[in-house]
Amino acid sequence: MPQSAHISEPPFARVALIGLGLIGSSIARGVREAMPNVRLSGYDKDPAVRARAGELGLVDAVAEQPGAAVAEAGLVILCVPVGAMADAARALAGHLLAGAVVSDVGSCKAAVAEALRAALPEAVIIPAHPVAGTENSGPDAGFAALFRGRWCILTPGETDAKGDAAARLAAFWTALGAKVETMDAAHHDLVLAVTSHLPHLIAYTIVGTASDLERVTESEVIKFSAGGFRDFTRIAASNPVMWRDIFLSNKRAVLDILQRFSEDLSHLQRAIRLDDGDTLFELFTRTRAIRRGVVEQGQDVAKADFGR
Amino acid sequence: MPQSAHISEPPFARVALIGLGLIGSSIARGVREAMPNVRLSGYDKDPAVRARAGELGLVDAVAEQPGAAVAEAGLVILCVPVGAMADAARALAGHLLAGAVVSDVGSCKAAVAEALRAALPEAVIIPAHPVAGTENSGPDAGFAALFRGRWCILTPGETDAKGDAAARLAAFWTALGAKVETMDAAHHDLVLAVTSHLPHLIAYTIVGTASDLERVTESEVIKFSAGGFRDFTRIAASNPVMWRDIFLSNKRAVLDILQRFSEDLSHLQRAIRLDDGDTLFELFTRTRAIRRGVVEQGQDVAKADFGR
Repeated sequence: MPQSAHISEPPFARVALIGLGLIGSSIARGVREAMPNVRLSGYDKDPAVRARAGELGLVDAVAEQPGAAVAEAGLVILCVPVGAMADAARALAGHLLAGAVVSDVGSCKAAVAEALRAALPEAVIIPAHPVAGTENSGPDAGFAALFRGRWCILTPGETDAKGDAAARLAAFWTALGAKVETMDAAHHDLVLAVTSHLPHLIAYTIVGTASDLERVTESEVIKFSAGGFRDFTRIAASNPVMWRDIFLSNKRAVLDILQRFSEDLSHLQRAIRLDDGDTLFELFTRTRAIRRGVVEQGQDVAKADFGR
Repeated sequence: MPQSAHISEPPFARVALIGLGLIGSSIARGVREAMPNVRLSGYDKDPAVRARAGELGLVDAVAEQPGAAVAEAGLVILCVPVGAMADAARALAGHLLAGAVVSDVGSCKAAVAEALRAALPEAVIIPAHPVAGTENSGPDAGFAALFRGRWCILTPGETDAKGDAAARLAAFWTALGAKVETMDAAHHDLVLAVTSHLPHLIAYTIVGTASDLERVTESEVIKFSAGGFRDFTRIAASNPVMWRDIFLSNKRAVLDILQRFSEDLSHLQRAIRLDDGDTLFELFTRTRAIRRGVVEQGQDVAKADFGR
């Protein structure tokens, strides 16, 4: 796994983080390690989070107003739920430095890019999505290594491809240990609907289904969760606001992928009903190859986790 | 987590394991640690597994025929896929000691109990299911600690509740570190359909859906799997034969739970389509409580795993 490099000439001298939860506080910690010369400012709309960020020393200055946080920053990163991006961006209007790069970490890119560009028409907008996270939330949950070896996807769009803003933002994420890829926002939203949004929707659903049964108690569901359910409960413990916003913001791609999933599930349901073991066996064998790819490409470790 | 106790008077002096894969080899290793006085014999229908079991010294004697493995055993445990239980049991007919207890480790209990009782009408049948496993298979994948702190469910049924066989089998599993619960076979099959079988079916489906898309490449699915998909690939890497058999053997309960899951998923799909964020938020908040229960009851650790 690549280590974050300690670099002496960071791509941005002053960075502002709007939102100091899991992702914002992980960026702050990563910058402290990899780019110690960078001056960090931060803001969170929750006074308790601002206070905690101050106690933790996450940034050099915790501002009481978002405009004050960004006043001197060459890079501003919005680390708020995707549904809160528009409001967070509007609060920065008139406070940004000329030429400041505004980015984000949202899991949907087309809707967020549109919101940021509408709110801040003068800024250089480079949307980004680090594909990393945990099921925990808040400023205490972050850690500097969160992005190491993970991908960060930039969706600069055509109008922002001029200049070096995307290259500098890529250098920033590389310094945090991430691998950077650039793609079209719509394609990003489709890929992430598959690799992230649908898995979360399914996990939330199955945990809900299990807790609503009449003949199986919640206590039994919990006791015997080591058979596979347990892993779904971890995913279904993720931040509810963040995920509500993602499904609403990436509605089209999520519904598209969900339709295909439902068809495939009906196909397996029919195979079970008809005792068609060959169809089941064929799929269950094929899915093992994908797992091998995930492990080989360093996106998970091979250590058996299921029986921990 | 309870440790397995080193006990000097084991409930069975001689134990035979039929099937030496992940579960059989984990039982063997656990017996070696906790009940070193027990004489272990073993058989696997795959000659390569028999050879490997010999190299690993998993048991005292690897038999070339199943009948020879069980000839002196007071406890015989069938550790084969549930669809292979009937054949494996029939191969033991006429070779068992009088009064020998025959058990298994299958994830479906009603169908397996019926198969074992039909094949071995003279034996004392106590079906069992240790709710533990990993996504790996084979004699090298097993480890003694697999059952520690996990539940083992016995479904002795009314006719076998006489005598002390169930109590002795419970003592055996307790010595391996498991917590033992007794329940009706049909109820077991419903509970496990929720906590194990449906999660596996869903994971296999979603990994299959992802690999069949035209506009998203398999390479992209793998690269960006850290967003949640990764955890499904682990579950979907489980033994294909074992899981094919489970779905066919526990058809009724799996189809019942699957129907409820599909209804719940349609409900969420509709909420997304109608921009009904409140319905999403309400569910996503409720599922966090289940996760807390899983962690509090020691069925998973609280350490964030999702971003590893």
